[in-house]
Amino acid sequence: WALTSVSADAVVQATGAQQRRAIAKSITLLESTRADHRVQADELLTALLPHTGKSFRLGISGVPGVGKSTFIEVLGLYLIGQGHRVAVLTIDPSSTVSGGSILGDKTRMEKLSVHEHAYIRPSPSSGTLGGVAEKTREAMLVCEAASYDVVIVETVGVGQSETAVANMTDMFVLMQLPNAGDDLQAIKKGVMELADLVVINKADIDPHAATRAQAQITSSLRLLGLHGNPEHAHHNEAIWHPKVIQISALKGQGVETFWASVQHFKALQTQSGNFAARRQQQSLAWMWERIDAGLKQAFRQHPQVQALLPQLTQAVLEGRMAASTAARNLLSAQINRA
Amino acid sequence: WALTSVSADAVVQATGAQQRRAIAKSITLLESTRADHRVQADELLTALLPHTGKSFRLGISGVPGVGKSTFIEVLGLYLIGQGHRVAVLTIDPSSTVSGGSILGDKTRMEKLSVHEHAYIRPSPSSGTLGGVAEKTREAMLVCEAASYDVVIVETVGVGQSETAVANMTDMFVLMQLPNAGDDLQAIKKGVMELADLVVINKADIDPHAATRAQAQITSSLRLLGLHGNPEHAHHNEAIWHPKVIQISALKGQGVETFWASVQHFKALQTQSGNFAARRQQQSLAWMWERIDAGLKQAFRQHPQVQALLPQLTQAVLEGRMAASTAARNLLSAQINRA
Repeated sequence: WALTSVSADAVVQATGAQQRRAIAKSITLLESTRADHRVQADELLTALLPHTGKSFRLGISGVPGVGKSTFIEVLGLYLIGQGHRVAVLTIDPSSTVSGGSILGDKTRMEKLSVHEHAYIRPSPSSGTLGGVAEKTREAMLVCEAASYDVVIVETVGVGQSETAVANMTDMFVLMQLPNAGDDLQAIKKGVMELADLVVINKADIDPHAATRAQAQITSSLRLLGLHGNPEHAHHNEAIWHPKVIQISALKGQGVETFWASVQHFKALQTQSGNFAARRQQQSLAWMWERIDAGLKQAFRQHPQVQALLPQLTQAVLEGRMAASTAARNLLSAQINRA
Repeated sequence: WALTSVSADAVVQATGAQQRRAIAKSITLLESTRADHRVQADELLTALLPHTGKSFRLGISGVPGVGKSTFIEVLGLYLIGQGHRVAVLTIDPSSTVSGGSILGDKTRMEKLSVHEHAYIRPSPSSGTLGGVAEKTREAMLVCEAASYDVVIVETVGVGQSETAVANMTDMFVLMQLPNAGDDLQAIKKGVMELADLVVINKADIDPHAATRAQAQITSSLRLLGLHGNPEHAHHNEAIWHPKVIQISALKGQGVETFWASVQHFKALQTQSGNFAARRQQQSLAWMWERIDAGLKQAFRQHPQVQALLPQLTQAVLEGRMAASTAARNLLSAQINRA
């Protein structure tokens, strides 16, 4: 590839099929692991950056079967009807293990995927969760440069991916089914604490259960707000207390209420300065996360470390060497014989 | 200091006041940050290592006011009565911030602290939580080499220190007060999932509340056992399902029941091979944790990184450079100009 094969201008200024091709090419370049591609990718990112940041970044998480795709299809079409351009990106933690996606492809959102004002990109299909999250963040910047003003980042609630999504979006929405006990799971995993809004889907199937779940989750959120670690919350409790709403994505019920809540949250966050502060905080955290990942990778690939690691690991396992002594030996191996 | 000023032999073979002085000197050496002391400390650790590992390592956590000191004093005196030698180490997360300990000193355990078969050491008073945990692990090895056969590591349940303690002990005990709502907190922070045993203290003050709390926590533990991430649990649910017991430390009630539960747990863990497996896993995890901490420290202290960091941080905050691009630039600064 030459750098000229994908230009920032094509992403920013082209329209229609030409722009889609430019976006797809850009994301492919960003996902490449070749060193020369990475240099081009950084140049492309830097050129795109002045055109980014103007979208609303919405994170949506929930267990398989909660109805995320149905909801995103309905929401996306509603937003396009309101004049928005909608990009949907996915982080699938299973793809980082298997190399394949359990979330399937664009066929999950039949109408949205073929709409000219929507862009749907499945999860990068390999790498660590941190790596996949990085690619998704960068794909988000490409979509923003291409004037998509609502970027939805979707993930399945089975791993650590919820934190990754909450850390790259302006608002994090947790979708729940109307059964008791689910809220305990979300609390246990620390996901409830990340939520700016909780949506109970399929409320029409069992209205009583949905209302009970709404009360339970509201009460859990109140306790978390009172006692939770403020550093874990992404919002300021004094400005926004997370809401719980009921919807039925299949019947298209509750989508307007949902979007009104989003708009209300966004307005309060913007007024208070939290909107910009959260983005700055996310950027810095992202930088340090990638640095730490890079340091670990370089260490594990260092020839001297690879030579010493098996015997020191064995010494630690057999109790012949203290773990901290082994750690210090390996660290000096990397530094002294670089 | 010379290496001869503290010998492994004095720790292992001396008795009484002479041994106490050797232990105190060893721990002081291990806590020193001077590079030449660190070399001596590693030699001392390696010499002590063959004499370590024969104690039972018991972690105890709970919020301030739950009665940890009272319980440990009663338990320690009971164990000494049974012929054990008891060491008590403390990890105080507040000391890593303030340099002082909110947990106070030995005066909290008046009778135990003066007993010839007990050794009490307060929290290291500075450093990161990871650093404090490392010093405490090493102090634990010194106490084991000095024939203390029960080592209690205590921490206050207000930070991430519970995970550090659970990761260095054979059994992790969570102390709770008999009020509803506390279990939600412990679940939220992921501490409940670490517990091998939950102890409700001050049960005599309100027996009804204590019994209600016991039922609630038992039910929460059952749900966590059914749905929790097996990687987070320190025990195997097929072999041990965490128990909830009531005690009154102030009245000395329940201490025998507590120790019987501990013995039962230990026997099952030993039979199944989990006891040894958990220790090996902890040693390896400890090694990698110290490596990661060392890598981060070396990076932050690198002159080229320190020179570039302010301007790149600024560029990221102002949106002129993508966070991942800044991370890559800083990583290559460290590697290329070492």
